[in-house]
Amino acid sequence: MNVPNGTIKANVQAALEEDLGPGDIHVSLPSDDSDRHGTIIARSHGVLCGAEWANEAYRQVSEQVEVDWAKVDGETIEPSSLIATISGPVSALLAVERTALNFLQLLSATASQTRRFVHLIEHTQARVLDTRKTVPGLRLAQKYAVRMGGGNNHRIGLFDAFLIKENHIAASGSISNAVSRARMAHPDMFIEVEVESLEELDHALQCDVDRIMLDNFKILQLREAVRISRSFSNHRRKAVELEASGGISESNVVQVAETGVDFISLGTLTKDISAIDFSFRIQS
Amino acid sequence: MNVPNGTIKANVQAALEEDLGPGDIHVSLPSDDSDRHGTIIARSHGVLCGAEWANEAYRQVSEQVEVDWAKVDGETIEPSSLIATISGPVSALLAVERTALNFLQLLSATASQTRRFVHLIEHTQARVLDTRKTVPGLRLAQKYAVRMGGGNNHRIGLFDAFLIKENHIAASGSISNAVSRARMAHPDMFIEVEVESLEELDHALQCDVDRIMLDNFKILQLREAVRISRSFSNHRRKAVELEASGGISESNVVQVAETGVDFISLGTLTKDISAIDFSFRIQS
Amino acid sequence: MNVPNGTIKANVQAALEEDLGPGDIHVSLPSDDSDRHGTIIARSHGVLCGAEWANEAYRQVSEQVEVDWAKVDGETIEPSSLIATISGPVSALLAVERTALNFLQLLSATASQTRRFVHLIEHTQARVLDTRKTVPGLRLAQKYAVRMGGGNNHRIGLFDAFLIKENHIAASGSISNAVSRARMAHPDMFIEVEVESLEELDHALQCDVDRIMLDNFKILQLREAVRISRSFSNHRRKAVELEASGGISESNVVQVAETGVDFISLGTLTKDISAIDFSFRIQS
Amino acid sequence: MNVPNGTIKANVQAALEEDLGPGDIHVSLPSDDSDRHGTIIARSHGVLCGAEWANEAYRQVSEQVEVDWAKVDGETIEPSSLIATISGPVSALLAVERTALNFLQLLSATASQTRRFVHLIEHTQARVLDTRKTVPGLRLAQKYAVRMGGGNNHRIGLFDAFLIKENHIAASGSISNAVSRARMAHPDMFIEVEVESLEELDHALQCDVDRIMLDNFKILQLREAVRISRSFSNHRRKAVELEASGGISESNVVQVAETGVDFISLGTLTKDISAIDFSFRIQS
Amino acid sequence: MNVPNGTIKANVQAALEEDLGPGDIHVSLPSDDSDRHGTIIARSHGVLCGAEWANEAYRQVSEQVEVDWAKVDGETIEPSSLIATISGPVSALLAVERTALNFLQLLSATASQTRRFVHLIEHTQARVLDTRKTVPGLRLAQKYAVRMGGGNNHRIGLFDAFLIKENHIAASGSISNAVSRARMAHPDMFIEVEVESLEELDHALQCDVDRIMLDNFKILQLREAVRISRSFSNHRRKAVELEASGGISESNVVQVAETGVDFISLGTLTKDISAIDFSFRIQS
Amino acid sequence: MNVPNGTIKANVQAALEEDLGPGDIHVSLPSDDSDRHGTIIARSHGVLCGAEWANEAYRQVSEQVEVDWAKVDGETIEPSSLIATISGPVSALLAVERTALNFLQLLSATASQTRRFVHLIEHTQARVLDTRKTVPGLRLAQKYAVRMGGGNNHRIGLFDAFLIKENHIAASGSISNAVSRARMAHPDMFIEVEVESLEELDHALQCDVDRIMLDNFKILQLREAVRISRSFSNHRRKAVELEASGGISESNVVQVAETGVDFISLGTLTKDISAIDFSFRIQS
Repeated sequence: MNVPNGTIKANVQAALEEDLGPGDIHVSLPSDDSDRHGTIIARSHGVLCGAEWANEAYRQVSEQVEVDWAKVDGETIEPSSLIATISGPVSALLAVERTALNFLQLLSATASQTRRFVHLIEHTQARVLDTRKTVPGLRLAQKYAVRMGGGNNHRIGLFDAFLIKENHIAASGSISNAVSRARMAHPDMFIEVEVESLEELDHALQCDVDRIMLDNFKILQLREAVRISRSFSNHRRKAVELEASGGISESNVVQVAETGVDFISLGTLTKDISAIDFSFRIQS
Repeated sequence: MNVPNGTIKANVQAALEEDLGPGDIHVSLPSDDSDRHGTIIARSHGVLCGAEWANEAYRQVSEQVEVDWAKVDGETIEPSSLIATISGPVSALLAVERTALNFLQLLSATASQTRRFVHLIEHTQARVLDTRKTVPGLRLAQKYAVRMGGGNNHRIGLFDAFLIKENHIAASGSISNAVSRARMAHPDMFIEVEVESLEELDHALQCDVDRIMLDNFKILQLREAVRISRSFSNHRRKAVELEASGGISESNVVQVAETGVDFISLGTLTKDISAIDFSFRIQS
Repeated sequence: MNVPNGTIKANVQAALEEDLGPGDIHVSLPSDDSDRHGTIIARSHGVLCGAEWANEAYRQVSEQVEVDWAKVDGETIEPSSLIATISGPVSALLAVERTALNFLQLLSATASQTRRFVHLIEHTQARVLDTRKTVPGLRLAQKYAVRMGGGNNHRIGLFDAFLIKENHIAASGSISNAVSRARMAHPDMFIEVEVESLEELDHALQCDVDRIMLDNFKILQLREAVRISRSFSNHRRKAVELEASGGISESNVVQVAETGVDFISLGTLTKDISAIDFSFRIQS
Repeated sequence: MNVPNGTIKANVQAALEEDLGPGDIHVSLPSDDSDRHGTIIARSHGVLCGAEWANEAYRQVSEQVEVDWAKVDGETIEPSSLIATISGPVSALLAVERTALNFLQLLSATASQTRRFVHLIEHTQARVLDTRKTVPGLRLAQKYAVRMGGGNNHRIGLFDAFLIKENHIAASGSISNAVSRARMAHPDMFIEVEVESLEELDHALQCDVDRIMLDNFKILQLREAVRISRSFSNHRRKAVELEASGGISESNVVQVAETGVDFISLGTLTKDISAIDFSFRIQS
Repeated sequence: MNVPNGTIKANVQAALEEDLGPGDIHVSLPSDDSDRHGTIIARSHGVLCGAEWANEAYRQVSEQVEVDWAKVDGETIEPSSLIATISGPVSALLAVERTALNFLQLLSATASQTRRFVHLIEHTQARVLDTRKTVPGLRLAQKYAVRMGGGNNHRIGLFDAFLIKENHIAASGSISNAVSRARMAHPDMFIEVEVESLEELDHALQCDVDRIMLDNFKILQLREAVRISRSFSNHRRKAVELEASGGISESNVVQVAETGVDFISLGTLTKDISAIDFSFRIQS
Repeated sequence: MNVPNGTIKANVQAALEEDLGPGDIHVSLPSDDSDRHGTIIARSHGVLCGAEWANEAYRQVSEQVEVDWAKVDGETIEPSSLIATISGPVSALLAVERTALNFLQLLSATASQTRRFVHLIEHTQARVLDTRKTVPGLRLAQKYAVRMGGGNNHRIGLFDAFLIKENHIAASGSISNAVSRARMAHPDMFIEVEVESLEELDHALQCDVDRIMLDNFKILQLREAVRISRSFSNHRRKAVELEASGGISESNVVQVAETGVDFISLGTLTKDISAIDFSFRIQS
């Protein structure tokens, strides 16, 4: 688990604050605040993700709640799967229920969708990458979900790798200007350049880049790009990596992967959410 | 606009922190940091939402950026619609781009989906409600998006209205126990009770409740529930409101609405996200 | 106990920061930092309130302090009553003393004053309510103290129930405009309207309101208001509730309660503080 | 004005958060959000205090509100006095009203009570001091109110001056041990010692202290203490200051002051609150 | 240990955030996250300081790390001294290493430099004081380090004692104006005045001050100042203290101390840092 | 300027809080709070750095202060150089003085020391790099100062590039294990490996690394390392970069640079501080 504790705490605190505000009024409903057991049950097929966020939610509300996970993050689930058993004061179980499920339904959605793409192309050497098109405030959580689904993480943000895109190239004059400025300013940084044509690919291959993103290339163009890049790389020990991006869905991802690109990046993994449903029921 | 300033600021700050971290390294790419113009263009059909979050993102990064909106929140958009023109230092335009678009793509998704449901049932008197199944950290933002789509907001959280559900009823012994405890503890609160059968509906109607949620009722049951409730309400000046919930999608929402229920609540409005795409291009 | 942990922590943190600042300089006085016992003793008659805030204050300064309460929140106290025994490092006992007592003296004051009003009218069916006239930063704490004194809480703030007052009516045109706008915008919210005359009461009774506040009504007017409202309510199953407010003190609260109103709201409960004194002495 | 901006901002932010929570629902009531004028009017006699907190409250909610003060902090007010005129969007005027008045009613109460004590003893050379018995979270605000009432501030907290009390003396062995430890550890600090008898006064006078607090001394004892201290001080250039404390009220403060003590400290100034009432009315 | 817990936590949180950001990527390197032992070893001569900051850093990253200190704060260290043994998950040991060492290297530097000055003048009665020339954000930490080195703390900031300097004297008209305004406004505060000549010293001695700072006085002037002050003090029981300041280094501090001044304040203690080196090695 | 605004604000807020605490008591000294002019003057030779932190400090205390810089960050200064003229309320000038100077003295120290190293080796192609041995809480500020001095920044923290050190290699089994795990887990990251002998250099050159750090190599070994690496690189288009580190000071940096290494990293740039002195004087 390597999302910083502080991030998980902050994610959960924000969620609890918006749900509990000045206090759960339903605390007055139970006849007493005795300890109870409840179960989280899956209602959809998918990949579980988010246990640590749920744990933190219970922890922030009460130190007396115990959570036993029947499944762990990354594991496959199906309707009626027992996910977890929760024990503790009924007031805490009721107060945290929705917050815990909201994290699980979202992060499992991201993990599940990633898993589908990963499965589709596992016969190729291409790897699935996420993007920065994430739900605001939950980037690290979603990137973790992508890993749980079997995908790889692209850079986290604008600070940990260069991805030189059309707007940057325009602002710096040319691909080669942009790349040399990048190397000079940040000698420790990975540099990727986005190209939109085979001609731009040629330019980029002349530069000291680590990877090239092929944006919205058709299948035939992708194949040609792979060929050009390989022949070019005979002259250097290490091939420049190629990443396909733009307009890729479940219907064409196999074709894309089979062109020989090294990476496929998919905005849909994190910007589209098809919630995995879970229910929570307290045992009588 | 009535999401508290503080909430918008906090939403945007969290998003910028995860994208910019210790600083956008791409700031070194442009040959100078002159003022430029850029445009946000829609790439999908839908309803715009999130302008204030985008404004705040530019504001937090630079006081010199100006944003002119060609469309306002709640307005219909289509592919190639001009959404906004942004002017300011190129470093700021590049640093904020993804954060601004991430808010727009998510909140417009929620507004757009809400609008579709609202349109489908506008010939009935039923109103569309959201739920607490929201993206953690963005509840107020998504509830605002629901309003921009033409929907109504259910309670915000566990603190501003009672929704007495199965788990609460079990913990308090009976519907009537739960309702009278609620009235006693919080005399200023709206009380809704969830029922899962016509028999429970009968119990709930005997209690001092403001609304009854009919959970997972079939169409025929809903019609019967409306009939029972109306006949019951002849004895009181104001009818108890009825809300249909559970298992409602675009394919059956019209039937549900035509049963005569007052409200239809839809988890899908906020838990499922089908991002509305936008692009940002700096003019050369 | 249902004030959110986070609120208690924040209340205490603010108080400790202002008392300890960069550190208690008196820590240099004791010859060593051995464990000691101390006792909190009441110096006035009243109702104890605030134990959880005191606990939190000790907890934030040292994990080695133990607090044993001889009385619990809501219990009657009198001069010389033993309230609590505190054990732990003498440096912690001395650093926290004033902060702990400041919470107890204020919250017990609110609980004690509430109890006096509650006792005075316990032979009637009227219930005592607080208002939003609270000490800035301590609203939830004071509302908890009102409950410990036997009173009921009015809405927490501007977000959890409508109280449509003169300024709102003026801004919306009429009572009925205001009420219908409120119902439309927030279908889950309790609606109360403030009226200043019997004529306005008549208007309000025509509207779909849950409660009417009778502001600064004389005793005779209150009786008339109760009569009108009851006769009106014969036509509806559930009577509109009536709340008396304004100019009510210990000298006239019994008369007010005996008019038959359902609620009496009292700003004095939370805006006026007559501190309950406590002392802390370390045993030699 | 010398309460740090940051403190005022934090005080106001806490107060607005508890009143506005996820947003003022009454924003839906006015027919439009046009600019309006409103006036704050006093309803009691007293001394105004808190203008800067009210200003900050309007500022945090809207940048378009303007506040013109007819009275300034420290000025005398009476029922019907015009205090301020507020102009701006009606939604902001309504949202801030209670928060602004809550600060004014509390801080004016403290200033007013201080002023009464200051007036009573202005024919003597004794000065009125506050204590650390303050409302948690508002110590700096209340200490400012004491100054506006004409009083002087005792130390802020446990960090900016020594007040060696019974518990400290017990923990350090003797007054002289405590004083010499204090001087050694913090050579830049003012040292005051609390004594409970003339015998302890004698001990304290032998030590290198700046002031002696006479706790719960009777009038005759106070006179004797002043005599002893003066005769003792003939041997040193600067007299040790004397401060009377404990059991002092409006009924005996004049007698206390006339004994010749230099300072009188009064917990009641800040722990007891008798709110000064204000009303806010929007002009039609 | 009397730096507030909250300060240490905040210091460490800021440091960890800047080092770990969105997460330590090196967590992927170890073959498993088993428990390991590591040792902190000194690489320079000096005085250890900062153990509590290191402890807090490990605590914030993992609750499973244990730290055993072979040396305590204030103890002398030399190259190859074993400082501490750390046990816990290898991922935590690696993530915290640099943050823990950065606190130790800085705070030990301050303690070590202080110790050198203290040793040089220990045959005199002069005491070493720090100043407000500290590393932003670490004032309390550095002042603690000064104490560990054997020095004394001057005031913490602008709030806990007066140091009336040239700019203040200019702004208030004269030394005596400044001093009497200070006494009136803050009767509980220690007052020190800075003078730049023997003539100003004369003025200051006429005022009710607790200490006089002799700024940039030559050795002969310092001796004269001590003589004047002593003769003047024959008339008062307690001598005004004298503090030498400005232009004092290891080469002249002995001479300064031997003039008879009570205090020597040294900006260099906290503004100049000559890091004490430590290394951390995990045992294989 | 590319340190995030939020970082500068947080740095300054922490510094002001520790200096001002509950308020600058010296505000009572000036006869009135009229506007005044003051000047910041350098007292040492060096390179200016920190203007934006000083600006922010004035801004946080008063919106009425104006600062005109006679020098900009990165410019050379000498004793008596006019640095800036500050105008505004005298209370603000006095309250901010020390905080502003503390940032300038520290950051100018780092810039100045960097400049000295950069000058020494400017006839070679080697570039000066900083390390993570920084003052806790000020890493981004110090890294900015290094750039102002003409140096380059190494990675910010543990999150934006791999630097695989001895402890990591031990924990992963071998250099090649570590490198391939790094590439797999974070395909967008720059990878550097630290080696301690020519033998380890050989291993590292076989791996897919971007740079190799030569730790504590003697001059002869460095020359040999450069030779080996170059001959090895004939087989690949792009040479692996070499970085010398450990035991490098002003006395040997030229020799190191002349061996042909690409980078020299220097902990001393940020861990050792020799403050550049500035004074502030208000004009009478």
